[in-house]
Amino acid sequence: MNSTIDTILSHRSIRKFKSEPLKQAQLDIIIDAARASSTSSYLMAYTMIGVTDPDKKRALASISNQSYIEENGHFILFCGDYHRHMLYASDKEKAVMAQNVQSTEYFMIATVDATIAAQNMTIAAESLGIGVCYIGSIKRDLDLVNDLFDLPEHVVPLFGLALGYPDEQQEIKPKLPKDAVYFENSYKDDPSHKDVLAQFDQTIEAYYRTRSTNKRTDSWTNQMIKTLHNERNNRLTPYVKEKKFNNR
Amino acid sequence: MNSTIDTILSHRSIRKFKSEPLKQAQLDIIIDAARASSTSSYLMAYTMIGVTDPDKKRALASISNQSYIEENGHFILFCGDYHRHMLYASDKEKAVMAQNVQSTEYFMIATVDATIAAQNMTIAAESLGIGVCYIGSIKRDLDLVNDLFDLPEHVVPLFGLALGYPDEQQEIKPKLPKDAVYFENSYKDDPSHKDVLAQFDQTIEAYYRTRSTNKRTDSWTNQMIKTLHNERNNRLTPYVKEKKFNNR
Repeated sequence: MNSTIDTILSHRSIRKFKSEPLKQAQLDIIIDAARASSTSSYLMAYTMIGVTDPDKKRALASISNQSYIEENGHFILFCGDYHRHMLYASDKEKAVMAQNVQSTEYFMIATVDATIAAQNMTIAAESLGIGVCYIGSIKRDLDLVNDLFDLPEHVVPLFGLALGYPDEQQEIKPKLPKDAVYFENSYKDDPSHKDVLAQFDQTIEAYYRTRSTNKRTDSWTNQMIKTLHNERNNRLTPYVKEKKFNNR
Repeated sequence: MNSTIDTILSHRSIRKFKSEPLKQAQLDIIIDAARASSTSSYLMAYTMIGVTDPDKKRALASISNQSYIEENGHFILFCGDYHRHMLYASDKEKAVMAQNVQSTEYFMIATVDATIAAQNMTIAAESLGIGVCYIGSIKRDLDLVNDLFDLPEHVVPLFGLALGYPDEQQEIKPKLPKDAVYFENSYKDDPSHKDVLAQFDQTIEAYYRTRSTNKRTDSWTNQMIKTLHNERNNRLTPYVKEKKFNNR
């Protein structure tokens, strides 16, 4: 064990921040941490947009219906990006590239690149005592996000990070046990997989029943059935395709 | 600065490992680090498959044409996974869920969840002196990967991590500067964006010219034009769709 692993194992999402902005030196270092990330084929197919404009933060908070997107120390939007890769290409080269990056594979690559950068930033921030929450719900109105940040073709917003000095104490939420998410040499699809989930249901039922705030009665397997009954946002798929991603 | 940030900023991909397997206690702790990751809607929509079977490692190395996929301390395949979420659903519920998870959004969520877990594992491993390399090239033959690990519907392989005790010294490869990947309040698509890339081309040309191994003459912008001229694997998109991802 060491302090890095302590930081990783101590992760909890923070959803209430002090109004103090992040110190510039800390912001610079967590941006450097994001930049230091692994990338596929050296593409670095992501862009970060820091949001300080109060009107834009308010608009994002309204999309997500979460006040902590407005009230925090900083907010960063993470996008998949193949725009800059074409800036020095000839028109003829650009036509081929613009076609290729619309594949499922390049969409995956941009998503993975952006996420590695975001998670580097998250751990660097948490190691400095900064709280972090991933914000997937900006995807509820991608047209508005697109307009707010003037995103060109080949740039698609993926998620945001709300960052700031924590103004709440959060318990660590239980995660699926090793036996549920780690197999050896083959996908393990036997009855024991179901048993492990049933055991986890007991863990999470006890957690929901006894945690300090928002007590409730629920199990993980039941929660997943409810969650995956949601169709989510019908506009996301066409938006992503219009931005020239995931078309092939 | 602290040791966590030092670890993150010191990242370099390792492609030559000692033959010694990872110590079990270290493997357990980096799996715990992966499990501790943030997740969208508590889905934890990923599965890790550790590969120790020498035949399976050899097959993966052959797909990727990289010996270090076979010769390392451990190899872990990361998959997007909505299989386990339906194990306790009724047939009627399962039919709705199976339809919903085929959206672009749920494909993104699984990719992001798996990547956050992988990057947690990467940083935890590197903090213990373990070298890591992301392996995207397993996607060159997803049908074979699918058969090797007996992946059910709603489980799709995304990438692997090769892990082990480093048997090489690597320089840190330059990454795009802050001005290229971090904007404030709006996507910055003015001539200065091109200037920043031209400056980075000088940095990377000097790096390729002077690094200790594999010296070459190339720039980043030129490399990207070549890379994105590759159409990649035509089989990937239909495979992903057959596994019931990214269909809607």
